[in-house]
Amino acid sequence: MANKEFLETDILALDQRYRATFINSLGGFKSFCLIGTQNKEGHTNLAAFSSLFHLGANPALVGFIVRPDVAKRHTLNNILETGALTINHVNEVFYTQAHQTSARYAAEVSEFAATGLTEAYIEGINAPFVAESHVKLAATFVRKIDIAENGTIMMIARIIYVSAPEKCLLSDGFLDIELAGTVTCSGLDSYHTTRRLARLTYAKPDTVPQQVDRQRLSK
Amino acid sequence: MANKEFLETDILALDQRYRATFINSLGGFKSFCLIGTQNKEGHTNLAAFSSLFHLGANPALVGFIVRPDVAKRHTLNNILETGALTINHVNEVFYTQAHQTSARYAAEVSEFAATGLTEAYIEGINAPFVAESHVKLAATFVRKIDIAENGTIMMIARIIYVSAPEKCLLSDGFLDIELAGTVTCSGLDSYHTTRRLARLTYAKPDTVPQQVDRQRLSK
Repeated sequence: MANKEFLETDILALDQRYRATFINSLGGFKSFCLIGTQNKEGHTNLAAFSSLFHLGANPALVGFIVRPDVAKRHTLNNILETGALTINHVNEVFYTQAHQTSARYAAEVSEFAATGLTEAYIEGINAPFVAESHVKLAATFVRKIDIAENGTIMMIARIIYVSAPEKCLLSDGFLDIELAGTVTCSGLDSYHTTRRLARLTYAKPDTVPQQVDRQRLSK
Repeated sequence: MANKEFLETDILALDQRYRATFINSLGGFKSFCLIGTQNKEGHTNLAAFSSLFHLGANPALVGFIVRPDVAKRHTLNNILETGALTINHVNEVFYTQAHQTSARYAAEVSEFAATGLTEAYIEGINAPFVAESHVKLAATFVRKIDIAENGTIMMIARIIYVSAPEKCLLSDGFLDIELAGTVTCSGLDSYHTTRRLARLTYAKPDTVPQQVDRQRLSK
């Protein structure tokens, strides 16, 4: 494959929209999820995020980046008001509706109603889940970190609830999100299903990784 | 699909290794890349990361999380010494070798030599690229943020160089990383190729997203 090179001066000279599309493509495949929140009055909000990342297992922490635009501010404000959020994996059935949640709806419009996705609730969790999602998490706000370089905000949240298909949970704790239908995204607008190459055994010097035997891990 | 639920008390009660595997699976599909660095003496290091995330396009910023283990400390120390790193997408041909870089090699062992991956250099970039990678970035250290909750470190870096297959670059700036063969990962050890569902048009209230016409975007 012949490669095209971009030096820093080339990157800086790119048209703003072209650069946003280009730079967003460079970080590899991304987690794509819907974050559900509500304000103190119970008005719900649902927003698509592609920046969720694992921060730690003990305590169970995730991070995500909130951009300083109007739609995402609703998510931020609701989390600061209630401390609660849900994180809902997106599957092939509703990825178009998930994408549509990023439209700039007025504050009084719930993205659930606007896109036809279904609110679901669990006692003790002060935020709406997406009923259509197969892998659903609830989390509680831990801390926000302002990223001065570009005005974005990094959010840290602790996972306090998980609901996932029983058949996707293997005996070692691995959750097979491919089997659950979870999609991934790249760039600003590209959505993908996945096909597993392998799970590989824990890497040690002087050995070669082997495929983990899925049959033996199933319950 | 029948779902299994985990309350916070269930999560806290999980065996430590089971929990690490489980919680690592929950964040969705992840970017999987190799970060290349070297120390002041030019001794190279290569480490697998699955926490890279897009932070902004202007300036072009990415973030990633460094865990406080020995192997990743080499990457951290080298970046703090030289300010330089490369970020190399992983494809199907060498994902097993990429996984193997996470073995705990001694500091004097370069993961390039240990895994058989090939160092490549570009004038002005003080870090090694992976020759086998199709999408290669170079970045310069911006800032680190200590995550007190679990002792991890968030790194912010600015992209200063991109090399990508010309045929994967569309006229609107979108880089087709699926066509470039970039793989994604889930959990601690599962690797996946992707199959595009669609690119969707920019979401606006009262319209339905359409598929972006790839033919029209190709150059």
